[in-house]
Amino acid sequence: MQIAKVCGTVVSTQKEPSLRGTKLLQFIDSEGQPLSKYEVAADNVRAGIEEWVLVSRGGAAREIQGSEQLPIDARVVAIIDTITVENPMLYGKKDQYR
Amino acid sequence: MQIAKVCGTVVSTQKEPSLRGTKLLQFIDSEGQPLSKYEVAADNVRAGIEEWVLVSRGGAAREIQGSEQLPIDARVVAIIDTITVENPMLYGKKDQYR
Amino acid sequence: MQIAKVCGTVVSTQKEPSLRGTKLLQFIDSEGQPLSKYEVAADNVRAGIEEWVLVSRGGAAREIQGSEQLPIDARVVAIIDTITVENPMLYGKKDQYR
Amino acid sequence: MQIAKVCGTVVSTQKEPSLRGTKLLQFIDSEGQPLSKYEVAADNVRAGIEEWVLVSRGGAAREIQGSEQLPIDARVVAIIDTITVENPMLYGKKDQYR
Amino acid sequence: MQIAKVCGTVVSTQKEPSLRGTKLLQFIDSEGQPLSKYEVAADNVRAGIEEWVLVSRGGAAREIQGSEQLPIDARVVAIIDTITVENPMLYGKKDQYR
Repeated sequence: MQIAKVCGTVVSTQKEPSLRGTKLLQFIDSEGQPLSKYEVAADNVRAGIEEWVLVSRGGAAREIQGSEQLPIDARVVAIIDTITVENPMLYGKKDQYR
Repeated sequence: MQIAKVCGTVVSTQKEPSLRGTKLLQFIDSEGQPLSKYEVAADNVRAGIEEWVLVSRGGAAREIQGSEQLPIDARVVAIIDTITVENPMLYGKKDQYR
Repeated sequence: MQIAKVCGTVVSTQKEPSLRGTKLLQFIDSEGQPLSKYEVAADNVRAGIEEWVLVSRGGAAREIQGSEQLPIDARVVAIIDTITVENPMLYGKKDQYR
Repeated sequence: MQIAKVCGTVVSTQKEPSLRGTKLLQFIDSEGQPLSKYEVAADNVRAGIEEWVLVSRGGAAREIQGSEQLPIDARVVAIIDTITVENPMLYGKKDQYR
Repeated sequence: MQIAKVCGTVVSTQKEPSLRGTKLLQFIDSEGQPLSKYEVAADNVRAGIEEWVLVSRGGAAREIQGSEQLPIDARVVAIIDTITVENPMLYGKKDQYR
């Protein structure tokens, strides 16, 4: 999985039936800096703007009950609380320091 | 999924049975600028030239009824109406401002 | 799918049973220029040297009757006739102009 | 598979049921140097900080009994003992020389 | 598939049951030059050091009888004899000229 920050939403009407609630995510590098790479992903865990999340891509995005048949290739699978690198904590949800 | 702009069509005659209606898509970065990366994708939502769309790649491209057996690895799954980044709107279909 | 030009053949004898007829393909960018990226792909449509083709990668390469069990991750799925970008034609098979 | 070094842990509470114990991995290049690319992966082999591991991505991450339905796209599949390049040993777990 | 040269072996003991005999492969570009990209792959065709091989990645790596359940995402699927680019031969196994 990759680490990403929720930075927006994508709305589309003429979409395949059942594709809804997609988030715009910006990938974060392993030192906590934002990258220019992004992903548009389905989101069942209701992540909010600025929250850091884990994104699964490929077939993993469809391994959720009720999503097996959706034409999606990315999904928010978890909201991150802490990332601990060796000892110092890189990110904590409460304080949002980086 | 990635954000892309429809920029053309690809026609091929000696193709695998049942592969038809492929669009040439140019990927868009998360700030709305066109990238040099492209994809040729199947399209069931009938996206028009210059429209912004969501593209799914890999097995997701075959998760559409009737497409399970097609040798395709990319599909237009939605026509985008709006992309909202934090607050300012990055793209709105009606006005086509970026 | 990606656009590629057939530029050679790859012959291997101690191969997995049933893997045969692989082509060396050079990827083409969306403006018609050759890239340094390449792919070795199975080919059921019998594309000839210099022809432009569509390549599917991943599970899509095995979505051909009789190929479901092959250990291949890329396949030529179509020979391209024309690529039309907005209005000017980027590539036409007959005249081979770019 | 890719070679990676375990460099941290990722904790998330509002996660999809059954996703737990994810490690932060830093990819290592073929000469033993750390890359800036990373992966967050499930880990059944209980790799410790600083250990070098093999990471499988995509569907391979779900080919473990009991994991077939998890929304994960990366997994630690082995703890590396030695990597031998031609003749000189690149990495040995015991001495941790590089 | 990609072209790679066998450049070493990877030994790991605390591995998932049934994962064994992995080779370290260095990717080769389409002009026969080694790249800095590598892959660790399962190998059923018993490729030797310095031999050039075809590597399949993703689900294709598991399309070998007895490997359907292995957590691997790359496999050596063929030992290359010759690569012919347009007319001049890029690589021949016997003479090992490039």
